[in-house]
Amino acid sequence: MGTIGDVGEFGLIARLTRRLPQGPDVRLGPGDDAAVIAAPDGRVVATTDLLVEGRHFRRDWSGPYDIGRKAAAQNLADVVAMGARPTALLVGFAAPPATEAEWAELLYDGLADECRAAGASVAGGDVVGAPGIVTLAITALGDLGGAAPLTRSGARPGDVVAVRGRLGHASAGLALLTEGRDGPAQLIAAHRRPEPPYTAGEEARSHGATALLDVSDGLVQDLGHIADASGVRIEVDSSAVPVPEILGPDGLRHALTGGEDHAFAGTFPPNAVLPSSWTVIGSVGEGAGVRVDGREPPAGAWDHFPT
Amino acid sequence: MGTIGDVGEFGLIARLTRRLPQGPDVRLGPGDDAAVIAAPDGRVVATTDLLVEGRHFRRDWSGPYDIGRKAAAQNLADVVAMGARPTALLVGFAAPPATEAEWAELLYDGLADECRAAGASVAGGDVVGAPGIVTLAITALGDLGGAAPLTRSGARPGDVVAVRGRLGHASAGLALLTEGRDGPAQLIAAHRRPEPPYTAGEEARSHGATALLDVSDGLVQDLGHIADASGVRIEVDSSAVPVPEILGPDGLRHALTGGEDHAFAGTFPPNAVLPSSWTVIGSVGEGAGVRVDGREPPAGAWDHFPT
Repeated sequence: MGTIGDVGEFGLIARLTRRLPQGPDVRLGPGDDAAVIAAPDGRVVATTDLLVEGRHFRRDWSGPYDIGRKAAAQNLADVVAMGARPTALLVGFAAPPATEAEWAELLYDGLADECRAAGASVAGGDVVGAPGIVTLAITALGDLGGAAPLTRSGARPGDVVAVRGRLGHASAGLALLTEGRDGPAQLIAAHRRPEPPYTAGEEARSHGATALLDVSDGLVQDLGHIADASGVRIEVDSSAVPVPEILGPDGLRHALTGGEDHAFAGTFPPNAVLPSSWTVIGSVGEGAGVRVDGREPPAGAWDHFPT
Repeated sequence: MGTIGDVGEFGLIARLTRRLPQGPDVRLGPGDDAAVIAAPDGRVVATTDLLVEGRHFRRDWSGPYDIGRKAAAQNLADVVAMGARPTALLVGFAAPPATEAEWAELLYDGLADECRAAGASVAGGDVVGAPGIVTLAITALGDLGGAAPLTRSGARPGDVVAVRGRLGHASAGLALLTEGRDGPAQLIAAHRRPEPPYTAGEEARSHGATALLDVSDGLVQDLGHIADASGVRIEVDSSAVPVPEILGPDGLRHALTGGEDHAFAGTFPPNAVLPSSWTVIGSVGEGAGVRVDGREPPAGAWDHFPT
């Protein structure tokens, strides 16, 4: 099939667009100056992430399909973390001309399949040739269905803190890859392809969540964002944090500080009766910051500007 | 002030966010998992571009403020080219940790000022440290105000073709910089900072435009997109194309094939009476492709995968 340099920008766009089914929220899909997406609520939830090869993914550690699924998942999770329903993704894709066109096609298959899992579509984007590395820019859009957005600032003293989804799995998988190991397969897979529980936003809303976010940088660090925005202290009981055996001897550390599983963490009124898929791991009190078992939490969160 | 590695991701985000005024369409601005933007029309127009240092801009040819204005302009122009009113921009910014924080601040000042010129705001985004080069991912959103989008597919035989805004200036300025020259200043400035006439979308709509786009790759190539999407032939009369003296001996070539001025080109019913800011340059007929003075146009459009 050749490289993307062989097929050219417009050729590649045509190949990729054919692989992107358009859902009912897409009023005008790829091919014009811009897409048009339904926003029935009269507002649109919008978030952007920039993913850089070597920093956010490695082509020798993950195939294009998984890179696509993961890139879509982390942005769709941000939309769900506002309590919204994802509607569409826009994708900017930069790659060296020597990249195989098939690699790009599989990447977009991954993007499209993850969108489908969340009820959304890849509705537009940009493709550019650039020397060096692969870069992905993902914008996700969503609809709030008339509800108030679930921000980080609504937690109140007395609330309970609960999580939904895997913690620490992606981090443990990344540690294995860094050590040159290839198992346990479940952890490697968790690093390559997170599985955010996309129903969590609606569940949280219907159970009166006062704050919600997705865990991208690590549970403790991300709960810190809720504590800061809400002006409260969050107390985590480490014995309540789900740490399955498979995470190994560093399991608790992975669960507390590992990002990229895109679990959801929220705060709920004290009397909330949560579904069994949610695990209560702590409480909200007066003060500031996050405490784990009453102490300052361990360091080890992702540093976005490694030196 | 130091580098962005010194101030860190969260420190940089705080500095940048302070410089971003939020307009009335922003329901929830930077700082949460996602932004919430007004979409009063019940639909949202959305477009993404990925801009890569060395490919789309050079830090030795343009300062950060101009890079920001240009990056915003090209996406805001895409929204206007749909006949929509821009509401918000999301910005993904990747830069090496050694980049000066002040450089990033000036970049965002440029983004914010161009947004203001178009009636929009920088409502959110992402900041990442990454080795190598600066990358910008810009998503622009807009509102159609109840009207049908102005696509590329509505041109009909008998329509007239008209343009609004500068042609060839950015291309001529780029040619000067490539030759190591620093004037005429007006052309260099046009390369560094396009000035899309943001009222063009509304003007086109109110005069019954049947198709509209912004000229990003070159007039002939972009008119080709209208011809393809509409299933028509577009005839350009080169003597009608505005080619001011300052463009020099290659002026017509710059005007026909140069991109990045983000002028607007549209098709209108034969009886349309256009404002004097629009120049009729040709007509729509049966057939396919673009003809300039009845002949195949010259080559020389921007190739997105240079080898």
